[in-house]
Parts: sequence; structure tokens; C-alpha cells
Amino acid sequence: MEQKMRTMALEDAPLIRAHGRTGPSRSPLALFWTGSGIELVVTGTELWLEVEASFGPYEPWFSLLVNGTPVSRQMAQEGRRWVPVFRGMDPRTAKRVRFVKETQAMSGDPACALLLHGLRTDGELLPVPERARRIEFVGDSITSGEGAVGAQAEEDWIPMWFSALDSYGWRTAEALDADCRILSQSGWGVLSGWDNDPRSRMPAVYEQTCGLLGGERNAALGALEPHDFGSWQPDAVVVNLGTNDSGAFRSPQWTCAETGQTFKQRLKDDGSFHEEDLQAFEAAAEQFLGRLRACNPQAWIVWAYGMLGIEMMPSLYRAVDAHARRTGDRRVAVFQLPAMTARTQGARQHPGAEAHRQAAEALAEHLRGLLHER
Amino acid sequence: MEQKMRTMALEDAPLIRAHGRTGPSRSPLALFWTGSGIELVVTGTELWLEVEASFGPYEPWFSLLVNGTPVSRQMAQEGRRWVPVFRGMDPRTAKRVRFVKETQAMSGDPACALLLHGLRTDGELLPVPERARRIEFVGDSITSGEGAVGAQAEEDWIPMWFSALDSYGWRTAEALDADCRILSQSGWGVLSGWDNDPRSRMPAVYEQTCGLLGGERNAALGALEPHDFGSWQPDAVVVNLGTNDSGAFRSPQWTCAETGQTFKQRLKDDGSFHEEDLQAFEAAAEQFLGRLRACNPQAWIVWAYGMLGIEMMPSLYRAVDAHARRTGDRRVAVFQLPAMTARTQGARQHPGAEAHRQAAEALAEHLRGLLHER
Amino acid sequence: MEQKMRTMALEDAPLIRAHGRTGPSRSPLALFWTGSGIELVVTGTELWLEVEASFGPYEPWFSLLVNGTPVSRQMAQEGRRWVPVFRGMDPRTAKRVRFVKETQAMSGDPACALLLHGLRTDGELLPVPERARRIEFVGDSITSGEGAVGAQAEEDWIPMWFSALDSYGWRTAEALDADCRILSQSGWGVLSGWDNDPRSRMPAVYEQTCGLLGGERNAALGALEPHDFGSWQPDAVVVNLGTNDSGAFRSPQWTCAETGQTFKQRLKDDGSFHEEDLQAFEAAAEQFLGRLRACNPQAWIVWAYGMLGIEMMPSLYRAVDAHARRTGDRRVAVFQLPAMTARTQGARQHPGAEAHRQAAEALAEHLRGLLHER
Amino acid sequence: MEQKMRTMALEDAPLIRAHGRTGPSRSPLALFWTGSGIELVVTGTELWLEVEASFGPYEPWFSLLVNGTPVSRQMAQEGRRWVPVFRGMDPRTAKRVRFVKETQAMSGDPACALLLHGLRTDGELLPVPERARRIEFVGDSITSGEGAVGAQAEEDWIPMWFSALDSYGWRTAEALDADCRILSQSGWGVLSGWDNDPRSRMPAVYEQTCGLLGGERNAALGALEPHDFGSWQPDAVVVNLGTNDSGAFRSPQWTCAETGQTFKQRLKDDGSFHEEDLQAFEAAAEQFLGRLRACNPQAWIVWAYGMLGIEMMPSLYRAVDAHARRTGDRRVAVFQLPAMTARTQGARQHPGAEAHRQAAEALAEHLRGLLHER
Repeated sequence: MEQKMRTMALEDAPLIRAHGRTGPSRSPLALFWTGSGIELVVTGTELWLEVEASFGPYEPWFSLLVNGTPVSRQMAQEGRRWVPVFRGMDPRTAKRVRFVKETQAMSGDPACALLLHGLRTDGELLPVPERARRIEFVGDSITSGEGAVGAQAEEDWIPMWFSALDSYGWRTAEALDADCRILSQSGWGVLSGWDNDPRSRMPAVYEQTCGLLGGERNAALGALEPHDFGSWQPDAVVVNLGTNDSGAFRSPQWTCAETGQTFKQRLKDDGSFHEEDLQAFEAAAEQFLGRLRACNPQAWIVWAYGMLGIEMMPSLYRAVDAHARRTGDRRVAVFQLPAMTARTQGARQHPGAEAHRQAAEALAEHLRGLLHER
Repeated sequence: MEQKMRTMALEDAPLIRAHGRTGPSRSPLALFWTGSGIELVVTGTELWLEVEASFGPYEPWFSLLVNGTPVSRQMAQEGRRWVPVFRGMDPRTAKRVRFVKETQAMSGDPACALLLHGLRTDGELLPVPERARRIEFVGDSITSGEGAVGAQAEEDWIPMWFSALDSYGWRTAEALDADCRILSQSGWGVLSGWDNDPRSRMPAVYEQTCGLLGGERNAALGALEPHDFGSWQPDAVVVNLGTNDSGAFRSPQWTCAETGQTFKQRLKDDGSFHEEDLQAFEAAAEQFLGRLRACNPQAWIVWAYGMLGIEMMPSLYRAVDAHARRTGDRRVAVFQLPAMTARTQGARQHPGAEAHRQAAEALAEHLRGLLHER
Repeated sequence: MEQKMRTMALEDAPLIRAHGRTGPSRSPLALFWTGSGIELVVTGTELWLEVEASFGPYEPWFSLLVNGTPVSRQMAQEGRRWVPVFRGMDPRTAKRVRFVKETQAMSGDPACALLLHGLRTDGELLPVPERARRIEFVGDSITSGEGAVGAQAEEDWIPMWFSALDSYGWRTAEALDADCRILSQSGWGVLSGWDNDPRSRMPAVYEQTCGLLGGERNAALGALEPHDFGSWQPDAVVVNLGTNDSGAFRSPQWTCAETGQTFKQRLKDDGSFHEEDLQAFEAAAEQFLGRLRACNPQAWIVWAYGMLGIEMMPSLYRAVDAHARRTGDRRVAVFQLPAMTARTQGARQHPGAEAHRQAAEALAEHLRGLLHER
Repeated sequence: MEQKMRTMALEDAPLIRAHGRTGPSRSPLALFWTGSGIELVVTGTELWLEVEASFGPYEPWFSLLVNGTPVSRQMAQEGRRWVPVFRGMDPRTAKRVRFVKETQAMSGDPACALLLHGLRTDGELLPVPERARRIEFVGDSITSGEGAVGAQAEEDWIPMWFSALDSYGWRTAEALDADCRILSQSGWGVLSGWDNDPRSRMPAVYEQTCGLLGGERNAALGALEPHDFGSWQPDAVVVNLGTNDSGAFRSPQWTCAETGQTFKQRLKDDGSFHEEDLQAFEAAAEQFLGRLRACNPQAWIVWAYGMLGIEMMPSLYRAVDAHARRTGDRRVAVFQLPAMTARTQGARQHPGAEAHRQAAEALAEHLRGLLHER
């Protein structure tokens, strides 16, 4: 029964399932987005994973789950290291293991990368059971789980306060027995970022593998390649954007350092949104819906919004209306997520783990209805 | 210290506060709507209230609160009776007491009436402290608290399963320290009732004291008189209508017994709403918003919807948009209430007490933001 | 299908089940203890019960349950009256109805009585399904649900603040699908009452129907008769006494008005209990266990204590030890109930409904283990 | 403002507070017991800790807390390594950091050791604020948090399923703002272990630093030295032992491999405990109380028991009685902890995190009363 420890490259372990959009390489496997990682079922007493990380200011963090329980969470360290997952377990039982990236793709740190190379075990790999559904989440800091870890008083913008496992997206997927992919970036929006930077638009990068990443290495890993939508079609795409577009109206004008070009969502004297600028947001949202539909022909598209204010809700309804009217699309919906409260606030004025739990409960119930499995 | 028991007519007890739209008479005081009643602060050892009820199929129920605690709930009985509230209490302490109608105005029972005549006590009446705000709720069975009492298996449409105290409106008002008025009727909508009956429109009766009541007696009590909006201006009007308008699309055509006139909200062959009919609903909603604004010039108007489906939400957003654009009204909002779930369902497929509690928590938080007291 | 309303005396309705120790008469049926009442299953559209009450300072309250849901709670009124239970229900369905006395037997009000005479319905009575077990509770104000209703600020000792339905005993029985009987009296103990009155001993009245009641009428109703233990053997007897015995050590000496006899549980100078007096308490507890065993040969006897302090717990363990050693009794246990906290406190410094809920959850779990149905 | 990273040995950092009984060395600092570790307050952007581990079958795990939030949990790796705690934080703010051993001292793995050498930071150390109290916990697997991590289905006895942070002891201390020390060992008891091994007695090792550890290295680190009780006097000692003594009655006889000596707690034919053996347990418990008192002259001693059965409770009460009677000790108490339920069970049939949370809530409330700070 007893086996020797063996080392395997990921590319030689086809039974291991990779989660998240990534490049063509399997060894190493690049983990770009939060919530991405690998999943495997293995017998044996012991398991190690070979992890490589590099970064500038924003280091990646990851978690390990054994049979569904989070057992470890760590800051990744520079270089290539073997990380122990479990030891001393019954050699015959099958263990279901996940390695999950806890932190978002870092548009602000071109050096940031998290790669998986291989595994070491005395067990045998077994097939990973399929989940019932697939859900894709597209969002901003809320969807990145910013502040889901940490006390309310925390103010530093650091990866430590992010969590995929505590985010509403991950929890919604768990509640629905769904694989999930989470594309998200703090500060980004539909038309511009919170600071009026028009480059911080999720629609601009949605069709690439992970187009918001800079740096030659990420490019070499395939981050900027067009995503092959045929390879993974979700049952639902949940879009949680608008919070930063709303913030842009109250932020100073953005000026491009190179070209001097400027951008600003304007408030009127009475404090209300300038109609023209709101209209530009709605047009961008409508256009994004069109692209989402083109990329995901069968999926329900649900704009789920409201954990940090519902100011853009009327615009979102108008955008969805316009899209539906223009295209006849009947599988588009808007859903208001439960608002974070003083009690459920986490770090950095963002939703805490309890706010995410509530949002996941409501969203899962709603999606269950749409996906006809009530 | 000890006093004799004395009997007072309500009209001789100006310190007693009446809640709810009513007619000109104070003795008896007609309680039309659910949640209406009286509130008083009294010393003494003992208190009785003189209650009169009459009804056909749908008897009224009422509750008694002492110092904020519900101590009694009863089916009203025919005739004029003295109902004991408390006995044996410390004669010197002030007790705050409420008599609350638990059941909605009964459009289907012209004989139904609940009247208060007077009180009997050995104590002295004291002024009732003012609450910080006033909120008006306009809705259907959900707002009437239908099913908030009773097991999930209950199917009878009877007053016993209704409750004002357990309804989201009452609880929202409590959370915000607000006086509330609740205008609601099971089955009614904006454009028609659930059965396509165009007479079951809340907008048609909103400007009367309690215009949905039939019968000569109710007329004599003032139910059909125009309401004097100047006498009670709310800080917020919460409208929870649309659920029955949504149902009308899936109900048979209504035919007027007298005129043969028919009405029907139509589904298209593909199961979607007929655009023309949906447009009629939206026009009715928009028009109602105009009347609400005319009647309540300063109030926030919040269309709060979603406990039993969110199908009409896009239409509600369009109606609010159209209203705001047409009038420049900036104090109108839409808010999605948390959906009832399998766990929080009450009697008759309606929200149970826990669903109302959740809705109240979310709505109170939202209103707190609008009313600038976060 | 439609039936006429008919009136029946309880004695002519053998399908109706009576709960609680009572006298020989069925019409009227005397309800002595809290939680006593009747239970019936009936078809028909309408049901009334004929209730008679009389009292001096402490009036009885009662609740009505329809299909397990509490729908009404009322202060009983002097005299003989018909109380409506339900109206307008589907004539064919079977409704399970309970009438429950909410307030304890009143040792301080010899005039207090609550009687049931008969019912009026257009339906047919059906057999009441049997429950799986029988549990008897013996206790003091905690077991009487004193303070389970009412705000923390309430100080009046009045029946309004008592509740059987909210008490841990009733809820424990519900959780275990058990019929229950509750023998309890505020202020009473094992050896004496909280005020050192040696007459306020539950053991002294345990073997009578309801021996703590005074007055000729209660005597005539059979309250003082020896209880026929053969008629109802419980699976478990839960004793929750000791809290008032503990209080007696800190209360003034009691002096008998007639004989001048005195009684006092003494504290020593260092604030600890006088050993001799503690020993007297333990002897009384041991003796009570012997009587409980004699009266209930097969039942588990569980001394469940601790909602308002655990000061007497060592003594209770010693008493149970002594009893078990002396008699070889193996079906006796002590169980510590969860303590009331600042958050779960109710009226009059007594456990609130939430404290009772927690106690019931823990006790039901423990009894489930003893009764071998985990 | 910006500082260079500096490395410090623990012995050169007197502002760092060490938690848990340990040997004389500060660099390295040996962490023997679960919940032991260091606590520090530091400014700066970055912090690393130098951790050394060695082990045979049972590796240590540790957690990191930043400002009270658990941010990382890891399996320790062989050898001496720098572990990152935080990066990129505001250099000026003070961060409160804890390194906590998550796993118990391993009597079954003489090679197991976890040592802290030093730290690296660009910040300055500040004094660690004092907590209000000190509590010591003495227990078995329950107190070690065995099964507090992991799914109910887990059966492997491995360190991964242990947790100090999720244990009732840690949480009780947190609730009371107390420093805590936790002395615990799975399978151990008062008179013998669950398997009747008389060497597995916590009293036998209570007066050493960590006397249950084997191996020369642990001896060299000071594990077997007499503990200096004067150096840390607790306000309360909580003893949670008895569960394994209870199990011994149902386990086979133990035979010493070397001497052939045997030990067995016997059941009688009727399934009850043999009186003589139960008496031996009680004598051992009484004797332990005497030693606890001798070592901790001022502390409240609370025997807190009941999360996995309350079978030994009568014996514990007798032991405490005997101790109190013999010595006049008035600061000894017994407290029943809430039982684990099917819902709150964790891994390996042990209490899960929710069971520990409930136990901590009840125990903290009780201790608050004893320590006069209600």
C-alpha cells in the first residue's frame, strides 16, 4: 500500500482541474484572477504543491482547502517553493484539495505573478467530480473581496485585506454547486474608474485572458491574448459594476500624463449627475451587455449591484432596457444586492465577510430561480 | 392616591392620539386601515377600552401593546364591548398603551367596521410623546401582512392570518421611530387587481379616507370623503405595488357583470408581457407618482418592491424615470426588498414574519439614508 | 355539506383531550396550572369555546393555537362567555386547536379560577393524535414563565407578564413532541419560599391535584384531592427548584402570624450558607426525590437548574447522590440550564422569551439523550 | 521617515510579550503548548518572523493575527525560515501582531518543536498593552481544539484539524480581555487517559513547564523543568478534564509494555461505573484541586465540563465538595458547558468552531460573574 513520494509537473497531471482564465501553459500554470487555482482529488498520506511568486508592491496571497474546509492562508513568497498541503492522512482515502488565489490580478504591479508548477505526493490522482453549473463574475473591489478580511479601522490598500473565499461570488457559486470565474479590479468601472481614468474599464479587458495586467512576463504568460470563450461557457454572467462609475462623478478630473487628454463625469450645480455624462455611462453599459451576449450566447446575464449604494440603479435598468429592446435579448436581468450596513462593514469601508454572506444568500436564491432549479 | 374608575368618551380625551386616516368623528373613532388605532399614556392600576365591531364574512382582529410589548391579540366580536387592557399595575407609573387594528380594510365586506368609543381607568392621561418621523405605506396583501401569521400549509383567506404588527411596514416604522399609516388591500394593484379587475386600483382610492370600503355605514363614517392631506404630511411614502399587476398577465380576462366590459393584461405567445399592456401599467404607475407628489409635496416617494418576485422592476424603474423626467422630481426612488425564501414563507404563499423582519431591516436602512439620519 | 352550529358540553365531547391535572368534572373543566387546557381536532367553518373566569387581584390569561400557531392571547374576563376561535375556514379541513392557560395557579388569589364549559361549532370532532412522550415540569416562577412577556423595565407582579407558551417547559415539550404538565409557583422552593415561608414548598403540594390553591371553590373543584398518578405517567419529570431556596438565605426571617413560629435559612458571618441550613435543604431535596420516584416509578427524574444562578448546584448534586445511594435509583440526573444573560433578560429580572428558548434547546437535547432517541 | 529593514533576536526585543509557559531561553523561544506565541506592537511597513520547526509524525501549525484579525494559518515547515507577516502598510501606524501556535504539545512526537528566533522590520517596537486578566485552561482534546477545523466526516488524527484560535479557551479569554495559557492534551485525563494508561494524567505534568513532552531536545529547551508559578498568577484556572476518564471505563485494560503492570477503570455488570474506580477518580480530582490551589493561591478554580457528555459531573461535584470541606477553599466552582450538538459537531466527533463559540459565551458569562465584573 505504501508508496514513495513522487513529483509531477502539472502538465503531466491531466486529472487536475484548473480554475480561472489562464494562458496556454500548464507548467507553470499562471493564476491571474482572484479565485483562480487548481482542484484535485488525491489519495496518499501527503501532498505538496510547487508555487512560484514574484511581485513588486502587491504580493499575492493564497488559500488551501481540504475536503471543502479552508485549512491554510498565506502570503506568497518570492521565488519557487514547495508548499505543504497535508501530511499523515489515511493513504487510502480520497482527499479533495483546492489551491485558491485570494487576491485580485494587480493592474498596479506589472511584476506580480503567481504560478503553479507541480505537485509531490505518495498518492494517486483521481478525477475531480463535475459541478452542476458555471458562473462568471465581473466586478470591482467588491467582487475582489477587498476588505472582506480585516478590522473596520484598517485603511491600508494591501493584498492582505482581500479574500476570494469570503467574497459573495465564491459563496454564491458554492451555494449553487457551481464552478466560478471572477474577473474583478478595485477601482474599475464600466466607463471609467473611480478617478475618471477612462482606461480603468472592465469592458476594455473582458475579452482578453487578463488584459489589465502589465509587464512583459504577464504578456509572455498569455494575459493579453484574446480569451477563447468557446472553452468555458457559463450558465450565468453576474456583472457587479457601477459603484466606481458613480464615484467618478464626485472625483476630480483625470488628465492623461502623456497626451494631456482629460476625462470627467460631471455633477450639475444642484448636485445631480450631468445628463450627458450619465447617458455616456448608460451607453457604455448597454454596449458591454452586447459584448457579454456575443461572448456568452446562452448565459443569463445578471447585473447585480447595490452592496455599496444604489445610485446607478436607474441607469442600469435603462441600459438593460435599451439592450433588450435593441436586441430582443430576454435573458438579461438586474438584481439589487443587499446593502452593507454599519454592522456588516469590513476593512477599508468595504463589505465585510458577513455582508458578502448576505449578498451571496440573496443572489444564489435569485439565480436559482433564473436557472430553473428552485 | 387611589382613584375611582372613570369612563371617558374618546372625544373627551384629547391627549389620546389616533393613528390612521379616519373620519371626523372621535366618538366613535372609526379604524379603517390595518395598523390604525389609538395610543395613550396613562397612570393608574387599570385600563379598559370600549370596542365596537360589526362584520359579515371578515371579522376584524386587534392587538394591544403595553409599553411596547404586544400582550394581547383578539378576534373582535359583534357589538359594543369593554376590553380589558391591564389590571393591578402600579398606580403611579405611566403606561404607554396602543390599540392596533391587525386586519386590513375589507373591500369585500361592506358590513365590516371596527370602532373605538372610550376608555375606563382609575388613572390620568398624559401626553403621548411625538415620534421623530411619519411614514405612509401603500400596498397590497404583502403590506397588509397577509400570511404573516399562520403555518405554511394554511390556505383559507381569513382575517386570522393577517397581522399589522408583524408586517414590514410596522417594523420599518418602529426601527425609524416613526408614526405610520398603512393603506393596503389584498389583490389590488396599480392598473388592475390580480384578476384583471380594473376597479381594484389603489390609485383610485388613494385620495379618499378609505375609498375601497362599501356600505352605507362606512360612508356615514366618512370612509369615502376626500382625505385632508394637509392634516398629516409624511416624511416618506413607501409604495409596494406591482405584484398583482404582474399576476394579472397570467389571470383570465375580467368581465364586468353589469356592463359586459372586459379587461385583460395580455401575454404574448412567447410568454412575455404584451408591450402595450405593460406600457399601460407603466403609465398608470407614472400617473400615480404624480398624484402622490401632488398630495405629499415634501415626502420622499420610495417604490419598494420585490418580496414576491421582481418581474415588474424594469417597468417601475421606467415609470419613475418618466415621472422624474417629466416633473423634475428628485425625491423619488426605487428600492428592491429582500425576496421571501422557502425558509421565510408564511401562510398562504405569502411572506412570514421573518420575511417581513428582513424586509423591514433593509428598508429601514435605506430610508435612514434618504432621510439623512444614518 | 353545510352544517348548523351546535353547542356541546365538554363532557359530551370525549374526543377532546384535556391537558393538566384537574378535578373529576369535565363540564366545567377546571384549569388550575399554567399550560393546562384542552386540545381538539375539528372540521367546520367556525369554532367557539365557552370560558368562565373569576378572580380577585390576579386574573387568568389564555392563548389560542390553531394548527400550532398562536393566534390569540387574552386576559380572561369575569363570568361565563363564548370566545371565538376561528371563523370562515374551509368546512372540510381538520383544524387542530388548543386552548392554553397562560398564567400559573394563583396561591395568592383564592378566588381565581378558569373553567371551560363547552364548544360551539358547525364541524365534527375528530380524534386528537397522540404525542410521542409525556413530560412533567415542577418549578417556580421560572417554570411559570414569569417575565417571559414584557419589557426589561417592567416591575409589576401581574399575570400579564407570565406566559406558558414562551416558557422553556412548553418549548421543550414541543421540541420532543411531548404532552406536558407544568406544576409551578412563583417564589416557591423545596424547603421554603424565597421569603423563608416554610409553607411555600412545592413538595408539600406535589401529590395533590393543585394543593397550593385556597378557597372553597377550588376545593370544590377538586384542587386539594390526592392526585391519581396512575392516570398519567410521564417519561420524564423535570424539577427546576432551588432558586428561591437560595434566595431565602438572603431574605429576612419569616414569622407565622398565627403561631409566632419562625423560619430562617442563615448566612454565616463570612457570607456563606450555614451548613446546618444547607443540609436541611439537601435533606428536603432528597426526600422530594424519593416522593417523585414513588409517584413516578418509571420516569427519568431530571433536576434542571441554572437559569438564574447556580449557587445551589453542589447541594443538588449531593441530594441526588444521597438519593441514588440510598435507593439505588439509576434514573436520576442533574442538568445545568443555560444562564439568562443581560441580552436575554425579560421582565421583572426574569428570563425573557429568548432565555427560555435557549434553555429549551439545551434541555430537549439532554432529554433526547436520556430518552434514547438521539 | 523611511527606515531600513533590521533584524533583531527576540532576546534583544524586550518589548515583545511571550505567551505560554516556556523555558528560560528567549532566542530561540520555545512554543510548547497550543495558544502559546508572541505578541508585539510595531510601526513600519513590513514585518517578518523567524520560525524554526522540527517534527516527526505531527507537525506544528501556527496562525498570524494583525490587529486582532487572523490573516494567515500555516503548517510549519522543517528548518529555520523567515515568515512574512505584513508588507506595504502605513509606516507610521502601530500594528498589533500575534504569532499563535495552533496545535497542542505533542506527547506522541518527541521530535516536534516550534521555536521563534527573531524578527525583521523597518518599524519600531512599542509596548504591548496589558490585558485586564489572566486565565489558565487545563484540559484534553476539547481544550486543544481538536476537530474545531475540518468537516464532520474527517477521521484522521492529524494536527491540521486542531485550532487554538477556534477553541473555547481562546475565545473565552478574548471575551474577557484576558491573557491565556492553555495546557491540554488529547486523550489525557485526571486519573488516566481514555485508554486506561495511568501515565496520561494532566495532574502529573501540571507543575512542569511542559512535562508531557519527550525527547532530549525538549528537555534541553526546559520542558521538564518545574514551572515557576510565581512568574504568572492567573485570576482563574479553568479545568476541563473528565471526558477521557469517563471513556476509560469503556476502554480495554492498559498493560505496561515494560513492567506488565495493568490498569482498568471497571464497569459493573449492569453497565454502571464500579464504585471503587469512580472513587479513585474522585480522589485524583480532589488531589488535583489541592495542587491547583497550592500553585495558584488566589485564583478562582472552575471545573468546566460538559461539551462531550456530563457523565462525570456528579463525581466532579463530589470531588469539589470534598476539597472544599477538607480545605475550607471557597473559590472553587463547577460549571457545566453547553453540549455539542449534531449541528455544532466538527471533525473527528469533536466540537466544531460553533460549539466552541457557544461554550465560550457561556463560560465567559460565568467567569465574569465570579471575577466580579458583571
